[in-house]
Amino acid sequence: MRKELDKNIKRIAILGCTGSIGQQTLQVIRAFPERFEVVGLAAGSNRALLERQAAEFKPRAVHFAEGDDRKAGGGRSSALPKKLSLEEIASLDEVDLVVIATSGKAGLSPLLSAIRAGKQVALANKEALVMAGEIVTREARRHRARLLPVDSEHSAIWQCLRGEKEKPYRILLTASGGPFARYTSTQLSHVTPEEALRHPTWSMGKKVTIDSATLMNKGMEVIEAHWLFNVPLDRIQVLVHPQSIVHSMVEFGDGSIKAQLSQPDMRLPIQYALTYPERWTNAGLPRLDWSKAGALNFELPDMERFPCLKLAIDAAARGGTAPAVLCAADEVAVDLFLSGRLAFLDIPRLIGRTLDLHKSRLVGTHPSLEEIIQADGWARETARLLASRGQM
Amino acid sequence: MRKELDKNIKRIAILGCTGSIGQQTLQVIRAFPERFEVVGLAAGSNRALLERQAAEFKPRAVHFAEGDDRKAGGGRSSALPKKLSLEEIASLDEVDLVVIATSGKAGLSPLLSAIRAGKQVALANKEALVMAGEIVTREARRHRARLLPVDSEHSAIWQCLRGEKEKPYRILLTASGGPFARYTSTQLSHVTPEEALRHPTWSMGKKVTIDSATLMNKGMEVIEAHWLFNVPLDRIQVLVHPQSIVHSMVEFGDGSIKAQLSQPDMRLPIQYALTYPERWTNAGLPRLDWSKAGALNFELPDMERFPCLKLAIDAAARGGTAPAVLCAADEVAVDLFLSGRLAFLDIPRLIGRTLDLHKSRLVGTHPSLEEIIQADGWARETARLLASRGQM
Repeated sequence: MRKELDKNIKRIAILGCTGSIGQQTLQVIRAFPERFEVVGLAAGSNRALLERQAAEFKPRAVHFAEGDDRKAGGGRSSALPKKLSLEEIASLDEVDLVVIATSGKAGLSPLLSAIRAGKQVALANKEALVMAGEIVTREARRHRARLLPVDSEHSAIWQCLRGEKEKPYRILLTASGGPFARYTSTQLSHVTPEEALRHPTWSMGKKVTIDSATLMNKGMEVIEAHWLFNVPLDRIQVLVHPQSIVHSMVEFGDGSIKAQLSQPDMRLPIQYALTYPERWTNAGLPRLDWSKAGALNFELPDMERFPCLKLAIDAAARGGTAPAVLCAADEVAVDLFLSGRLAFLDIPRLIGRTLDLHKSRLVGTHPSLEEIIQADGWARETARLLASRGQM
Repeated sequence: MRKELDKNIKRIAILGCTGSIGQQTLQVIRAFPERFEVVGLAAGSNRALLERQAAEFKPRAVHFAEGDDRKAGGGRSSALPKKLSLEEIASLDEVDLVVIATSGKAGLSPLLSAIRAGKQVALANKEALVMAGEIVTREARRHRARLLPVDSEHSAIWQCLRGEKEKPYRILLTASGGPFARYTSTQLSHVTPEEALRHPTWSMGKKVTIDSATLMNKGMEVIEAHWLFNVPLDRIQVLVHPQSIVHSMVEFGDGSIKAQLSQPDMRLPIQYALTYPERWTNAGLPRLDWSKAGALNFELPDMERFPCLKLAIDAAARGGTAPAVLCAADEVAVDLFLSGRLAFLDIPRLIGRTLDLHKSRLVGTHPSLEEIIQADGWARETARLLASRGQM
């Protein structure tokens, strides 16, 4: 029987297939060749890897961003199959589930395409929900498109809520604290990009690794959790948990708390999103070894040393286009830090300054997508200008 | 409107109402006077407390064991309402849910009455499942009586399994380790009843507190979990967790683990069983304070220093009437220890010796209730005889 006739096969498109999440998604798919089919692949810059992936998984369509070489990928005879836009791949008729693993605001437009086509969406992109959480969740409800979280924290919350009828009393969002959890402010001022890229527990892409070191990543996750689970911001408590074994917890009205734990390995939450509502046994995934697990520690985060967390929560509380400005200024600041043009502690300063300037602008409480994209452009320009002038 | 006309009221009978679990059950009920009605109360020995409880909750029927004074409680005019047997109270028409909180084998017969009357049963009695797990679970299936665990560990497992379709890969049953977790064998040989009754994290009845100090309690919980959740014995791993915050965990086929946490307070699992499938907000119940939670530790148990754990698991693996013999010999051994006639380390020796003698007896794999009760009687007699002769 040909694969396409089999109802038990899930047909998957991966946007961001050459990044960390994309590659790990393909590892999970490789473990279940009879149950998944890769229908679309989209990559940003690593064409060599995309070609190898396309040769192995034989998708019907690909997207390759850099240089936009439609010629090279135009025909079946070339190294790549049919070339489509991100939005076209996200809404292909034969796709059941779209993995949105592109980082930054590039994920927003294809995410909305997938949602409007009623697809299941495994969402690893943070920025889309942070920038446009209200629009994304409203569209998902309207088109009955299911948003399946891929972030380990949100997957944990989702797993803890499984089968529960009551709304959570509180979400306890765990944070490793990043590589500098114990650094003093003086030590933080000397941090180099190389040091910041060495995350103690998770192996991830560059942008998210720096965001983890500043705790901006955790701040964005608070905003994501707020939208995904419809929980007020003040009912989301960040807890520093250096071992990254407990991926988050949900507290209920009766005082009972449920937690989800595993080895820190992104393939687990990826597989959960791909196989939901089932759980498949995968001998390739690690199990916790309790003879070695030892202690699990929890403490409240230090918002003074890690101001990005507070910046994010404050931006979300302001609402409107403030979270979009936060995202955009952070993308600029992390870029400048990675290229050595900004100190580590200047990241929150630059974002804070951009957000301050944004306060004077008229912001609606329910901005349109156009207003969000405009705010994003304004914030990038403003952050770059401020940085070039040293006005942090 | 009178209470009995209201479909939203749960009508409850509590067997063992003056014990620790019984009193805490009444505390939970007291917090929701509009939603619960106490229909029956049964006590073993504390008549004064039973009379106070009956005056407050006005049950239609009571049972009082000691002295069997039917005269005193026979009429509406006396201090107690209508007196019935445990089995009659457990199967009263107007009862929706029976809490079985009597300790020891006395819980078995009323448990079976409740099950055969198709009641929901909140089960806090361990011995019934340990002695007759096969019969109890088979009868529950046959009469569609739901067994709702009250033990904090089994409540945790039940909560973690909520909404899950897959069978657990493994159950991680946590144990505080008791007051002597760090004692050497020499120190253990000098333990007094007073020391053994001081449990570090839980406030419980005497029998279960001593069973916690020997880890026999945990061994019995392994057997209970095996029957309640239909999980093979070798897929149940005991983990020592001194803080008693994580009440147990379930590991799934995909490597994901779910845990249930709370302050160690029996009112939480009692309330969960009473309100299931709902969770009610109860301001009287404690919440975990994460600013103080600190470290959660986990390690594998030491079966050498705490042989009761191994005795229980081995008895369950042997099956037949061996678990009933384990229970009976333990009840005798704990009694003798509490009255100063047995040393702490003689508890496992006496139980082990009784089980050894039982090996030579013919044991069917699927014993009848009569065979189980016979084995119980034989084991009590044998254990007392061995102890009186000092043959441990």
